Amino acid sequence: MARPTPLSGFPELLPAQRIVEQHVLDVVRRTFELHGFAGIETRAVEPVEQLLSKGETSKEIYLLSRLQDDEGPAAADRDKQLGLHFDLTVPFARYVLENAGHLAFPFKRYQIQKVWRGERPQEGRFREFTQADIDVVGLGELPYHFEVELPLVMAEALGELRSIGVPPVRILVNNRKVAEGFYRGLGLDDVDAVLRAIDKLDKIGPEAVAALVVSEAGASPEQAAACLALAGISGGDLTVIEQVRALAAEHEVSHDLLETGLEELGALIGAAVVRAPGTVVADLKIARGLDYYTGSVYETVLVGHEKLGSICSGGRYDTLASDGANTYPGVGLSIGVSRLVARLLSAGLVQASRSVPSAVVVAVLDEDRREASDAVARQLRARGIPAEVSPSAAKLGKQIRYADRRGVPFVWFPAGLDTDGNPVAHQIKDIRSGDQVEADPATWQPAPEDLWPTVRPA
Amino acid sequence: MARPTPLSGFPELLPAQRIVEQHVLDVVRRTFELHGFAGIETRAVEPVEQLLSKGETSKEIYLLSRLQDDEGPAAADRDKQLGLHFDLTVPFARYVLENAGHLAFPFKRYQIQKVWRGERPQEGRFREFTQADIDVVGLGELPYHFEVELPLVMAEALGELRSIGVPPVRILVNNRKVAEGFYRGLGLDDVDAVLRAIDKLDKIGPEAVAALVVSEAGASPEQAAACLALAGISGGDLTVIEQVRALAAEHEVSHDLLETGLEELGALIGAAVVRAPGTVVADLKIARGLDYYTGSVYETVLVGHEKLGSICSGGRYDTLASDGANTYPGVGLSIGVSRLVARLLSAGLVQASRSVPSAVVVAVLDEDRREASDAVARQLRARGIPAEVSPSAAKLGKQIRYADRRGVPFVWFPAGLDTDGNPVAHQIKDIRSGDQVEADPATWQPAPEDLWPTVRPA
Repeated sequence: MARPTPLSGFPELLPAQRIVEQHVLDVVRRTFELHGFAGIETRAVEPVEQLLSKGETSKEIYLLSRLQDDEGPAAADRDKQLGLHFDLTVPFARYVLENAGHLAFPFKRYQIQKVWRGERPQEGRFREFTQADIDVVGLGELPYHFEVELPLVMAEALGELRSIGVPPVRILVNNRKVAEGFYRGLGLDDVDAVLRAIDKLDKIGPEAVAALVVSEAGASPEQAAACLALAGISGGDLTVIEQVRALAAEHEVSHDLLETGLEELGALIGAAVVRAPGTVVADLKIARGLDYYTGSVYETVLVGHEKLGSICSGGRYDTLASDGANTYPGVGLSIGVSRLVARLLSAGLVQASRSVPSAVVVAVLDEDRREASDAVARQLRARGIPAEVSPSAAKLGKQIRYADRRGVPFVWFPAGLDTDGNPVAHQIKDIRSGDQVEADPATWQPAPEDLWPTVRPA
Repeated sequence: MARPTPLSGFPELLPAQRIVEQHVLDVVRRTFELHGFAGIETRAVEPVEQLLSKGETSKEIYLLSRLQDDEGPAAADRDKQLGLHFDLTVPFARYVLENAGHLAFPFKRYQIQKVWRGERPQEGRFREFTQADIDVVGLGELPYHFEVELPLVMAEALGELRSIGVPPVRILVNNRKVAEGFYRGLGLDDVDAVLRAIDKLDKIGPEAVAALVVSEAGASPEQAAACLALAGISGGDLTVIEQVRALAAEHEVSHDLLETGLEELGALIGAAVVRAPGTVVADLKIARGLDYYTGSVYETVLVGHEKLGSICSGGRYDTLASDGANTYPGVGLSIGVSRLVARLLSAGLVQASRSVPSAVVVAVLDEDRREASDAVARQLRARGIPAEVSPSAAKLGKQIRYADRRGVPFVWFPAGLDTDGNPVAHQIKDIRSGDQVEADPATWQPAPEDLWPTVRPA
């Protein structure tokens, strides 16, 4: 067959790039687990009716059919038709309902999986990508403090990646209750219309947004200006709360929902000032327009890469799931791992120290003595040192090149006899420095930074 | 919405079960990496023509279409149509061709991913399941010693799981060259027909197989009896090679391919006797009928669960991939992780010590003092101890039950003031024994077996 070409929107990584992605996933997973989140996976498919219940995303769904379907075309019976999930929230909500009797609430879970969207690929948007989600879901109720904790868990996870060259992040937070209370207090009851307009601020600018608020939400120019003034407030400490209060007073706005929202947002910012200083910023224009959040909303930008869009978003929903008898409120965030890693690699920010796990290639002096080399590798592995044996008993220069091409730092020459029949001891060569010394496979230890591939700033 | 029901063939795990699966995956990954295999992932989809090139599997493929496809029904243009991969070998072969210029050969990779097959679900067979594959692929050539090494890597990976309660495994090996050389030496040239018949031995028995060899491969009853006699040979040491030689001599069979195959099979068994005694068994009836192997073939049974079928299979293929200019031979094996884990769980062989990562739940004495509990949890996590904070400042009995329901061994009571205003020190309670002692969040350490959830024999 001819050499295949990549499929647009379905990124794949070379081995050294995958080491970077795997490191990101390992760090994120460890942070989630340190915080007590239980890992689950859900199936890749959901009934299409379930996927469609989150309206606006319908255009993005991949449907499945069987090549040789003995039950007739699946399209004839949409109820039974399956589609690939486009996020991990819809499947999680279904999992919670399906297994509610076996779960302990509040239930904290993380989920790291591929999702698929049939949209047109562009930078930062893929048709297949990996998400890393955390959510807490309650039975009937879910205390506000989780809305404070979850973005701080993400701040910690992303902060743990600073040492490998990931830029700092800024987590932008808002609270739907603040916006809704403010709009309603102003006399604007079509809250969704205002939110949809505000959501376009970065794209179309304040004048066009003001026009939209007037035309779509029935606002007066003064009301529209007040909405824009609210959206213009941002800051990393509690003065933002005072700014909102001052604006409300100026427009004689008073509403219980606004008060509740400001208390919640203040609690979040107050905790963040202590626990993740400089990372969490209140930004009153964050709307996350199309989603069904009811409290805190979150977006996260990589500092210096703001145009990439959010790499970690989420929020609070009073009804993540409901089965009639019970309602399950939730709060969660999702890291767009593929988007983040693709940028780290394309911008040359991060690199792996080598393309294979091996710290050592054990040379083979003669194909008949391969077992001696295998034995050395086994001794090293038994002590947790990744080691492979040279694929052939080629000239030593070629075996060293085998290691060098993969970035493996050490080549081991097993003990044997020299050409005069005299015994020669085990030796190990650091192929970066050229240093070669005698070594014992039962005790030799590489430097800690050479043991496994490391991921570091490029 | 009503409570959803599971989809047949798409298994999902509860949190404690997922801890078992994750442990299996972690152990397998670590073993692969210790041996120098580089991890990669391939996209979930391949062009359907690529999937169909492995003929007999066509009935199992899930095709994709976009719900709102602006380019017309995908079925109209099969060339561009995408399907979900049904194994990791076809995608890997494509990946090798696509990236050949960026890979160093021989290329050793592992790949742990979901695959999908549209077949009818039954015990041990799913529509979505996880495989863990290792393969080595060469450019133009691939030395035989890899056919020895790869099943031993799998023996090691599966052996590492013995301590958690996984039964011993038996890796059954054969070599296509032995069978083909023997049949050709007998005068039977329709090797595939004989292999297909032998492949049915366990299902239909020797008499029906003999009849098939006669009717389908044009054999005489004596030739068919010789084929069955070959298939009847098995054993864990080099005497099997002698048995085959004796059978060949008895039937005056002599063929270069038989000789090469016996040398190869002998080398594999000889190495296995040293490195994985009792685990690798030559079994001359292993045919892996429908696949395109050209040398060693492997199947693996869980001892005591033979009817489950193979949990780890593979073999050598002289042409894993070819782009006209170059041919890429390969050898690999694939663990059916979902099949293995489903049996471990359904047979009650293995269990997790708890359902969440947390070793400690930090109690909250008063919602206003939540920050004191958060601070304790942060100190524990900073020292690598997974800890979560109680969701509410409920009565202490309720907070202890929160931990108990999840199997979390410890509850931490943060320092504070008692009802008389006297200072009370930090205390930690082992809720299994009821023991409660003073503790310092800067130094307290759980027993190693309590730090993370453990997976152990049930």
